[in-house]
Amino acid sequence: MTRPNPALGEGWFPSRWGPNDEQGAGNLQGPETVLRAQAMIRTGEIIPLGFPYRVGMPLSPGRTFGIKMPGGPSGGPEGAVSQTVWNDDFVVAELGQIGTHMDALGHVGHQIRLPCGHCETLVYNGNKLSDIWTPYGLRKLGIDKAPVFYTRGVLLDVEGLFGTPLENGFEITPDHLRQCLERQGLGQEGWLNPGDVVLIRTGHGARFFSHADSWYDGAPGLGLAAAEYLATLQPSVVGADNFAVDVIPAVDPEVVLPCHQHLIMRHGIYLHEGMKLDDLAQSGRSEFVYAFAPLRIEGATGSPGTPFAIL
Amino acid sequence: MTRPNPALGEGWFPSRWGPNDEQGAGNLQGPETVLRAQAMIRTGEIIPLGFPYRVGMPLSPGRTFGIKMPGGPSGGPEGAVSQTVWNDDFVVAELGQIGTHMDALGHVGHQIRLPCGHCETLVYNGNKLSDIWTPYGLRKLGIDKAPVFYTRGVLLDVEGLFGTPLENGFEITPDHLRQCLERQGLGQEGWLNPGDVVLIRTGHGARFFSHADSWYDGAPGLGLAAAEYLATLQPSVVGADNFAVDVIPAVDPEVVLPCHQHLIMRHGIYLHEGMKLDDLAQSGRSEFVYAFAPLRIEGATGSPGTPFAIL
Amino acid sequence: MTRPNPALGEGWFPSRWGPNDEQGAGNLQGPETVLRAQAMIRTGEIIPLGFPYRVGMPLSPGRTFGIKMPGGPSGGPEGAVSQTVWNDDFVVAELGQIGTHMDALGHVGHQIRLPCGHCETLVYNGNKLSDIWTPYGLRKLGIDKAPVFYTRGVLLDVEGLFGTPLENGFEITPDHLRQCLERQGLGQEGWLNPGDVVLIRTGHGARFFSHADSWYDGAPGLGLAAAEYLATLQPSVVGADNFAVDVIPAVDPEVVLPCHQHLIMRHGIYLHEGMKLDDLAQSGRSEFVYAFAPLRIEGATGSPGTPFAIL
Amino acid sequence: MTRPNPALGEGWFPSRWGPNDEQGAGNLQGPETVLRAQAMIRTGEIIPLGFPYRVGMPLSPGRTFGIKMPGGPSGGPEGAVSQTVWNDDFVVAELGQIGTHMDALGHVGHQIRLPCGHCETLVYNGNKLSDIWTPYGLRKLGIDKAPVFYTRGVLLDVEGLFGTPLENGFEITPDHLRQCLERQGLGQEGWLNPGDVVLIRTGHGARFFSHADSWYDGAPGLGLAAAEYLATLQPSVVGADNFAVDVIPAVDPEVVLPCHQHLIMRHGIYLHEGMKLDDLAQSGRSEFVYAFAPLRIEGATGSPGTPFAIL
Repeated sequence: MTRPNPALGEGWFPSRWGPNDEQGAGNLQGPETVLRAQAMIRTGEIIPLGFPYRVGMPLSPGRTFGIKMPGGPSGGPEGAVSQTVWNDDFVVAELGQIGTHMDALGHVGHQIRLPCGHCETLVYNGNKLSDIWTPYGLRKLGIDKAPVFYTRGVLLDVEGLFGTPLENGFEITPDHLRQCLERQGLGQEGWLNPGDVVLIRTGHGARFFSHADSWYDGAPGLGLAAAEYLATLQPSVVGADNFAVDVIPAVDPEVVLPCHQHLIMRHGIYLHEGMKLDDLAQSGRSEFVYAFAPLRIEGATGSPGTPFAIL
Repeated sequence: MTRPNPALGEGWFPSRWGPNDEQGAGNLQGPETVLRAQAMIRTGEIIPLGFPYRVGMPLSPGRTFGIKMPGGPSGGPEGAVSQTVWNDDFVVAELGQIGTHMDALGHVGHQIRLPCGHCETLVYNGNKLSDIWTPYGLRKLGIDKAPVFYTRGVLLDVEGLFGTPLENGFEITPDHLRQCLERQGLGQEGWLNPGDVVLIRTGHGARFFSHADSWYDGAPGLGLAAAEYLATLQPSVVGADNFAVDVIPAVDPEVVLPCHQHLIMRHGIYLHEGMKLDDLAQSGRSEFVYAFAPLRIEGATGSPGTPFAIL
Repeated sequence: MTRPNPALGEGWFPSRWGPNDEQGAGNLQGPETVLRAQAMIRTGEIIPLGFPYRVGMPLSPGRTFGIKMPGGPSGGPEGAVSQTVWNDDFVVAELGQIGTHMDALGHVGHQIRLPCGHCETLVYNGNKLSDIWTPYGLRKLGIDKAPVFYTRGVLLDVEGLFGTPLENGFEITPDHLRQCLERQGLGQEGWLNPGDVVLIRTGHGARFFSHADSWYDGAPGLGLAAAEYLATLQPSVVGADNFAVDVIPAVDPEVVLPCHQHLIMRHGIYLHEGMKLDDLAQSGRSEFVYAFAPLRIEGATGSPGTPFAIL
Repeated sequence: MTRPNPALGEGWFPSRWGPNDEQGAGNLQGPETVLRAQAMIRTGEIIPLGFPYRVGMPLSPGRTFGIKMPGGPSGGPEGAVSQTVWNDDFVVAELGQIGTHMDALGHVGHQIRLPCGHCETLVYNGNKLSDIWTPYGLRKLGIDKAPVFYTRGVLLDVEGLFGTPLENGFEITPDHLRQCLERQGLGQEGWLNPGDVVLIRTGHGARFFSHADSWYDGAPGLGLAAAEYLATLQPSVVGADNFAVDVIPAVDPEVVLPCHQHLIMRHGIYLHEGMKLDDLAQSGRSEFVYAFAPLRIEGATGSPGTPFAIL
């Protein structure tokens, strides 16, 4: 390998939760984070932070999403009097990696070339992908290992800071985040507790359905420096309204998806991608409850679903 | 048709929310239910109320569940230094109708025979299935129309009442529910507010993985009288740890899934099936926050996911 | 209904093979057609008459085609010495209706409105679709009921007649077919035996991969008159290098897919769509063996695969 | 590695057709094999040599087969007069590896451990699996590279030899095959031409639907010696009515699926598994035309379909 991988740095495993940990920053969730989150609730309004799923939504190249309705109806009629019928849906999809979704800790890896010239892929906590992979799901680090997230959330509205949606390839820096804190009156110190969730609004989400064909071509997002800054504050989740949290294309073409590697692999922090953050931004609230319970398909690499904010 | 369908009765539509409503008792959700629910929180402990999803779990006859991992890994390596790789999962399933899931209002219907001898299927709010059906999802009443549920929940522990899991075919009556209220100290009046959620523990859930092959053969559950009693209290959701909320087989073989028809079609109340309620019961808490955000696949007949309780 | 449906005419069922027949013109296949076909073989050259299947090929709106490889590899290593591994593929598709495929007799229907105002769909042999439909396949008239086809084939090269690919919407008439017979030296009488196969080259096939996105927008093809002419000669199969055999859009907008209805429903003749006929045309051979063994998925509405000619 | 792998032996690649060949013994197909096959035809009778595909058929552990019908119907009505409707089917399956199917040359491999301790999987012609694998199909050696097979076939009826179906684990030896030749009057020399197909009847096929749950538990089949004997005669395809052609469990537990490795990897001979051979055996014909045109899904590891014999 040429130079060290700046996204991982030295000694990036074992994790601070030990070599057998599968939950990463999910360990920071607990009754105390729940009780702390409660204090955020003012009006009781709930705002969904995800997009619905439909044929025609953006898909990363190679991925599939289809829904078919078996029969019309799927069952019945049963019961001479009730004449009961029912309907099913049938879905085929890279379910953990479409639309609004949270990545599992086993989703991203780093391939190393060994002295012998052969390669090995390492994922969170130094697990060898070859040890945890099966054709039918991950043996470890699947999204089923993630906890239910119910904790304080903070929105950093970078689109709001610039007053316009950011362009593809725009790198969000620590300084941009500090300017957001300033602008949003969150202060520079103690604005985030360990276990809290940080959501980054870039403006890319507003193009989700309207620019479905080009949505995955590129995006504004976090650069490695911003990810490093956030990691020091130990959030459980970093989310954004783009498709990778990372800025695309990568600032350094030799270091692709550095925020993925730095946040997931080194710090066990979950990424929530493809979020819908405009309604939340329009509410004017920077602090709220973030709630998300992953769909626990064993061995899946991520989870779709509907994260939501409570104001 | 022989006799009137007791599960629906007369004039079961339009709904109380008007002929165009697609949300049913979801309309009872709102800031006030959220704020009321907050008062339930004591310890901040979170308890998942659903099972994970895996090949080998119980499936209703004819349904499919598969997870395949495309490639190993699915993408990469990208970046000469980061050598970034990633993994996807691919799921094929009657996704809205497997394991722990909530039924959409369009899931269940009643087929009527017209004077001419032909049939028509009606669903919630008197919609003709033929008007809302497409091969690629429901035009109306899909689970994407449901709200985020965050509200007070009440557990009625019928298994606890009898001290043993109920047998397949055991009908839970209003009297059983009243005995649970008594035993759990919930009182007979005002124990449920409109918009609250009622969860019924039968003991069938404990057999979910251990008796996967026979799990759908039958189940203890609510009879029509119990559903009628609950409906008068206007819950948003009625859930249970069996596969249909209804007792199976039906008490009256001519009236199949009467609770489905009565609760969903007449009252727009959502059913949450295949729930995991043992941990909640063991907590000793009868009142709690129930939270569930459906996976919003447009036109789907239901949603899997992880409902959870906050204690 | 306004006027009689010219594609079906009066008394279009029962079929000539009786009211219970499910094989239609497949009944014309037998040892004698096989032996007759043998006489066509000269060089022994085999020419595939279908396209391969890949992501990116044309798909009718709403249909899906995906192939995913579970794992890498899917199984093994097994055996301390042999270290045997194996690979699987996983396909999701409207398998009977993509790319080059043969329609089952249950694929197409005609919806009638009854005096009471309700509708019923009739398919081959007057079967009510509601009697044979299930959410998991057709009870009758699935492609598994079709025979193995091995019989004399005749290519009518309409593109060759005009010296250029036909345009979308170009209707092929009986006169065009007779001109092909003349040009190809096949004579006007006795050029087709009952049970033979007729393949029509329009030129649309050459645009299959190169114009995948627009391939289903329209096509040259047979008009009803041409289908009626061919039907009198009792072929087992009529195939073409377009997507419906029929000309698209329909000549008479009130009569959509008339060749489908006339050939499949009235005469039980199988349609082979999306064929690759250029190599065959370039061989200069108008008569050959046509061989096709449908993929016998029970209850499927059609079959993909590789029909082939033996010269 | 402990000892050399007897299934592959030394210098098993490059193939006799050169290091870039992807067709293996398919190269032995050509006009001459077609013309030679013609001479086998006597009565013109066609016998399918495959089973239909249905939910409930045997599946190798981990594999899925489902068919769902989108809508009822899937499309239409279109045309005010024709009121045309149509039906699709939707299939999800390890399509190339279920029921009766032919393996692609890229299906089976041999994992080697390198001095450095790392592993590499080699497939036909010494290709590294890592070079040809993608998550969406094989770059090389997919079943789409196989030719149309139309050639002389020979049935060796080992079940007939013993007068009873063979038991699971029964190894068929060269001597058994010679006894079949004797019994069937095929002679010991020159009974097979290069490019011909050999089909082995074990009796396991008769249990395909009746013993679906246990069908993959084990099977009678060829041992390595029998495969070596057949390979010297250069068939294009070796087929059998069991699920692996190989005897299961393996005679030598350290050498699993040796016929797979020897025939496919060393000799490029295609395996046709799960065949239905009883009707052919009952016809009394040992020589016939074997015809099979693989379903050419690009990059697929095998093909389902309906091979057939012409008598």
